[in-house]
Amino acid sequence: MRNVKLTIEYDGTHLHGFQIQKRKRTVQGELEKALKTLFRRKIRVAGSGRTDAGVHARGQVVSFQVDSDILTRKIRAGLNRYLPADISVRDVKDAPLNFHAQFSAKWKTYEYKILQTQVRSPLERFDTFWLRYELDLKKMKRAACVLLGKHNFRSFESSGSARKSAVRTVRSLSVSKTGDVFTILIQADGFLYKMVRTIAGLLVDVGSGKLSLGDVKVIIKSKNRKAAGWTAPARGLCLKQVTY
Amino acid sequence: MRNVKLTIEYDGTHLHGFQIQKRKRTVQGELEKALKTLFRRKIRVAGSGRTDAGVHARGQVVSFQVDSDILTRKIRAGLNRYLPADISVRDVKDAPLNFHAQFSAKWKTYEYKILQTQVRSPLERFDTFWLRYELDLKKMKRAACVLLGKHNFRSFESSGSARKSAVRTVRSLSVSKTGDVFTILIQADGFLYKMVRTIAGLLVDVGSGKLSLGDVKVIIKSKNRKAAGWTAPARGLCLKQVTY
Repeated sequence: MRNVKLTIEYDGTHLHGFQIQKRKRTVQGELEKALKTLFRRKIRVAGSGRTDAGVHARGQVVSFQVDSDILTRKIRAGLNRYLPADISVRDVKDAPLNFHAQFSAKWKTYEYKILQTQVRSPLERFDTFWLRYELDLKKMKRAACVLLGKHNFRSFESSGSARKSAVRTVRSLSVSKTGDVFTILIQADGFLYKMVRTIAGLLVDVGSGKLSLGDVKVIIKSKNRKAAGWTAPARGLCLKQVTY
Repeated sequence: MRNVKLTIEYDGTHLHGFQIQKRKRTVQGELEKALKTLFRRKIRVAGSGRTDAGVHARGQVVSFQVDSDILTRKIRAGLNRYLPADISVRDVKDAPLNFHAQFSAKWKTYEYKILQTQVRSPLERFDTFWLRYELDLKKMKRAACVLLGKHNFRSFESSGSARKSAVRTVRSLSVSKTGDVFTILIQADGFLYKMVRTIAGLLVDVGSGKLSLGDVKVIIKSKNRKAAGWTAPARGLCLKQVTY
């Protein structure tokens, strides 16, 4: 047996998220279909984590075991031939047999992009969240500092999740602006369900003046999802990197 | 009567170019449809120039005359409500009655983006031309210098065009690289049919070593379309700005 690690990119716009579902195009579904064509047998992949419908990835990692000695570069070429245009395999590596895309992951980095313009942008419509009103970058940076570190992020977890602990360590969280685009870059040892999008929503509310720094502190302490407010839309989110 | 100047953005991926055509979605067609809804009468627009199917724009300019006193910001809001998601109006201004989007244009700026990676990119597939092989940036920059200035660009004009003169002045032409993306930025007083894409194709051939600087000089002098070679695909091209 051999353990293979894939780094994949996808445009989530027309995909129903990562996890396999019947009669729906998903990343896992398309990937397993391509693997079946390539290896002529059913292969189950494990992803570093699920991404929701509409969420993109530049560095999602999946692993799978297979009994085959095809060269890694041939696996990459073969999969990229069989995969649809909105998914590609950027890198293929052999991994130790105990490597697992989800359980071996140390850090994950997500990027959330907000376009702040008067008018909607056709060319940016699939990979940014468009906001008409202005945001105060300084305030957003300050709120990001409050979220940094080890916290119980229960307030930022969407219901439907069944994790035991909501304690996560946010190793870095930056907000920057280039042209009309605000970029939130966040790295943590793990994320609760919809946590990045809830943090993005919170930072928007701070940037618009709806919430103060004090409010952010209260929201974290409350450990109550209702306190944190809304979830920013999927299209602005991209899984950039998984570190092992 | 009143003369109105619109600056528009579009994602050309699913549009059949600028010019109106029966039973096909085009920029002009969609724009005139939205104008008809807004002003309740048939309005004909003039664009700064046509763009082909698949070509994008961030700063295409169109003008039209109308007998109405609606505020410019209301024209913008109205059109953006009626236009489809792949077209938007960025700016609306009143212009002198003798202003004409095509005939008053002084300079046009186009951008051509080439993605140079081993693997195709789902997230960049609609706005870059993907190349697997490496390009020599220095050689491309040198070839750009050769093309700069006033030349007869007959070699770069696709057939089907009926212009009298093929003499154009290229005011600036730069090639730069950020990450995996090569960007060709070109400004001229006008462009022949498919001229930018033929120049992009030529610069790629120089970057890959297929053509030398000497070849480029010969191609310009030949005034023969067959000499310049292929036309780079539409998806990498974007009309950035029209200057009046």
